[in-house]
Amino acid sequence: MTSGPSPRVAVLGVGLIGGSIGLAAKGRLGAEVVGFGHRPQTVARAVEIGALDRGAATVAEACEGAELVFCAAPVAILPAMVGEALRASGPETVVTDVGSTKRELVKACGGDERFIGGHPLAGAETAGVENAREDLFEGARWYLTPTDRSSGLLYDRLQRLLSELGARPQAIDAASHDRLMATVSHMPHVVANALAAEAAQALTDGTERLPEVGPSFRDATRVAGSNPSIWADIFATNRDAVAGSVESVARRLGEAAELIRDGDRERLVAWHAAAGEDRRRLLESDSSAGPLHELRIVVDNRPGTIAELALALGEAGVNIEDMALYPAPDMTSGAVTLWVAGSAGAERAAQLVRGLGHTVSVLGAGE
Amino acid sequence: MTSGPSPRVAVLGVGLIGGSIGLAAKGRLGAEVVGFGHRPQTVARAVEIGALDRGAATVAEACEGAELVFCAAPVAILPAMVGEALRASGPETVVTDVGSTKRELVKACGGDERFIGGHPLAGAETAGVENAREDLFEGARWYLTPTDRSSGLLYDRLQRLLSELGARPQAIDAASHDRLMATVSHMPHVVANALAAEAAQALTDGTERLPEVGPSFRDATRVAGSNPSIWADIFATNRDAVAGSVESVARRLGEAAELIRDGDRERLVAWHAAAGEDRRRLLESDSSAGPLHELRIVVDNRPGTIAELALALGEAGVNIEDMALYPAPDMTSGAVTLWVAGSAGAERAAQLVRGLGHTVSVLGAGE
Repeated sequence: MTSGPSPRVAVLGVGLIGGSIGLAAKGRLGAEVVGFGHRPQTVARAVEIGALDRGAATVAEACEGAELVFCAAPVAILPAMVGEALRASGPETVVTDVGSTKRELVKACGGDERFIGGHPLAGAETAGVENAREDLFEGARWYLTPTDRSSGLLYDRLQRLLSELGARPQAIDAASHDRLMATVSHMPHVVANALAAEAAQALTDGTERLPEVGPSFRDATRVAGSNPSIWADIFATNRDAVAGSVESVARRLGEAAELIRDGDRERLVAWHAAAGEDRRRLLESDSSAGPLHELRIVVDNRPGTIAELALALGEAGVNIEDMALYPAPDMTSGAVTLWVAGSAGAERAAQLVRGLGHTVSVLGAGE
Repeated sequence: MTSGPSPRVAVLGVGLIGGSIGLAAKGRLGAEVVGFGHRPQTVARAVEIGALDRGAATVAEACEGAELVFCAAPVAILPAMVGEALRASGPETVVTDVGSTKRELVKACGGDERFIGGHPLAGAETAGVENAREDLFEGARWYLTPTDRSSGLLYDRLQRLLSELGARPQAIDAASHDRLMATVSHMPHVVANALAAEAAQALTDGTERLPEVGPSFRDATRVAGSNPSIWADIFATNRDAVAGSVESVARRLGEAAELIRDGDRERLVAWHAAAGEDRRRLLESDSSAGPLHELRIVVDNRPGTIAELALALGEAGVNIEDMALYPAPDMTSGAVTLWVAGSAGAERAAQLVRGLGHTVSVLGAGE
C-alpha cells in the first residue's frame, strides 16, 4: 500500500477506536479518511482533532470511493451497519469491523467475499473520540476472522494496512475467537459481578455492620458492572461461549467447596499451589521481555511515595508492567506490589527500591 | 495502661505481625517485650531491629510475669500454642492471638476466661520480621472475639492496649467473624483460583495459541495461589463458611449463565448495572474521606509518566487510594485508573491530570 497512491478509508462510528483508526491512517499512511457518525457534533470534533478529513452525511457517502471501510459501532448494530456498508461499497472494497464478538456478525455478513471481521485488543478502558490516539494500536493484537468465502486479495490488503497502523494482525476463525474472549475477558466480568452481588447480600443481610473490604475483594471485583450497555451486547452476542465458560467455573467452585469442606490440608495446599502456577503461566505468555517478577514493597502511603518509586524505576529505564496498591485502612502506609518483566529488570528494580529505604521481597517466575 | 508502670508483653512467634506488635508496644507504650520463636536466628534478628527486648528459650519463659501474651503463629498451631501460653501464664494475664480464623480456636480455648481471640486486618501482603513496622496497625481494624466466659477486666485491658498500638479494636463473635472473612477475603481467593485454573485449561487444551491476557483477567486472579500453606490452613479452619460462600457464588454463576444463554438484553443490562452498584456500595463503606471516585486517564506508559502523575497529585495533597494500570500490549502507552476519595479530591485530581496534558474521565459515586 505504501508504494501506491494514498488509500481512501471510511470510518463508520467515530468513538475511541474509529477516531484512533482515522488518526493512524492519516498520520502513518497519508490516507484520506472520511467519517460517518450518528451525532454530528462528534463527527465535527473528530475532524477538529484531525481524525477525519471530513464528515459524510450518510453511510453511502462515506463509503463512496473507499478502498477500506471500518465499522466501529457498538456490537448490537454492527450487522445492520456492515450490511449497509457492503451495499454502498464497490466490488474491490474491503469492509471490516472492530466488534468484541465475531460469530454472529460473521454468520450474518460472512457470505460476502468483501467482508472480513476484525477485533483489535486495544482501548477497552476508555471511550470517546476525545481519547483517540494515533498510537492506540501500536503492538496490539488485531484478530481477523476471514471465512472460506473471503477474498484473499482483500484479506491481504486489510492485514497489510493494519500492520502499517502498528497492529499485529492474526487470523482466527470466528467461533474460536469468541471462545477465547469468553475465557480471558467475558467470563471474568461475569465472575466479578457474581462476587460483588454475593458480598453485597452477605454483608447487608440482617446486620448494620459493613466491614472493611480487603484488597483481594477490590481486585477480584474491579470490573464489576462496568459499561452495562456495552457488556450486555457482548454477553448477548457470545451467549453460548460465555455461558459455557461461566458454568465451567461454577462447577470448579462446586468442587473447590467440597475440597474445602473435606478440609484435607495436603490436597488444599496442592490445589492452591496449582492455581498460582496456572496464573503465572498464563501471564508469562503475555510478556516479551521475559517472565514477570513480582516485587512486594512496604511503603509510606503519604502522597509522593509512589511517585518517588516510579520515578526511580523510570529514570533507570525499568518499566512497571502492572501495579497494585494495598493501603492500610488509614491510608498512611501500605504495601505496593509491582510487576517487572525479566529477572535483570526485577533485580535492578529491587536494588533501586532498597536504595530508597524500603524493604522489598522479589518473587521470581519460578516461585 | 499509660498511667501505670510499663506493661510486660510476651510475643510468641516473631514474623511480620509479632515483630510489629513488639515494635509498637516498645515504641508507643514503653513496654518490655520478650519473644519466643522456633528459629533462634529470627528471634535474634527481632532483638536486633528493636522488636524485642530479649528472646526466651521457651514459651513458659516468655510468658513469665507477662500481663499480655500475643500468640502470632500460623493458624494451624495456634490451639496448641494458646493452650501452652495459658498454662504458663498467671491468673491476671490476658492471652490473645492474631489468627485469620477464630471459631475453631475459640472453641478449643474459649473456656478459659483469660483467652480472648483477636485478628488484626493488617499486613497480609508481606511477611517476615524484616518487614515489621511500628505503625503497621495504625488505623487498622482489630477484631476481638470474647465469649460469655471471658473476663471483662482482661478484655478491657486488651482493647485499651490495642488502641494504644494505633488499632481500632471491635468485638465480634467468632462465628460472625469467620463468616465475614469468608465473604470478603477467603471466598475471593477461592474464586481467583478457580478462574486461573479454568483459563489455564481452556487456553491450553488442544491449541498452541496462548493469547494475550487482558487486564480483567489479571485483576480477577491477582491473589490466585498466593502462600499455599497459609491459605490451606485458613480454608481448613473456616471450612463451613468458606464452602458455603463458594457454593453461593457457584449458584449465582449458574443463574448468570442462564441469564446470558437467554440473551434478554434488558435483563442483562439491569443485572450488570446492579453488580456495579453493589461493588461501589461495598467499597464506599471503606472510605472515610467520602465515596470513591474513579479517574480514567490515558497516558504514555514510558518510564516516568506514572511518577509525574503521582507527584502532581501528591504535591497537591490528593491521595491515591487505589490504582490500576492497563498497559497497551507493547507497553508504550495505556490507561490508568485512579481512585480518589471525595468529590473535591476527584475534581482537584482531574484538574491536575488535565494540566499535565492527559485526557481524563471522572466517574462519580453516583454513576
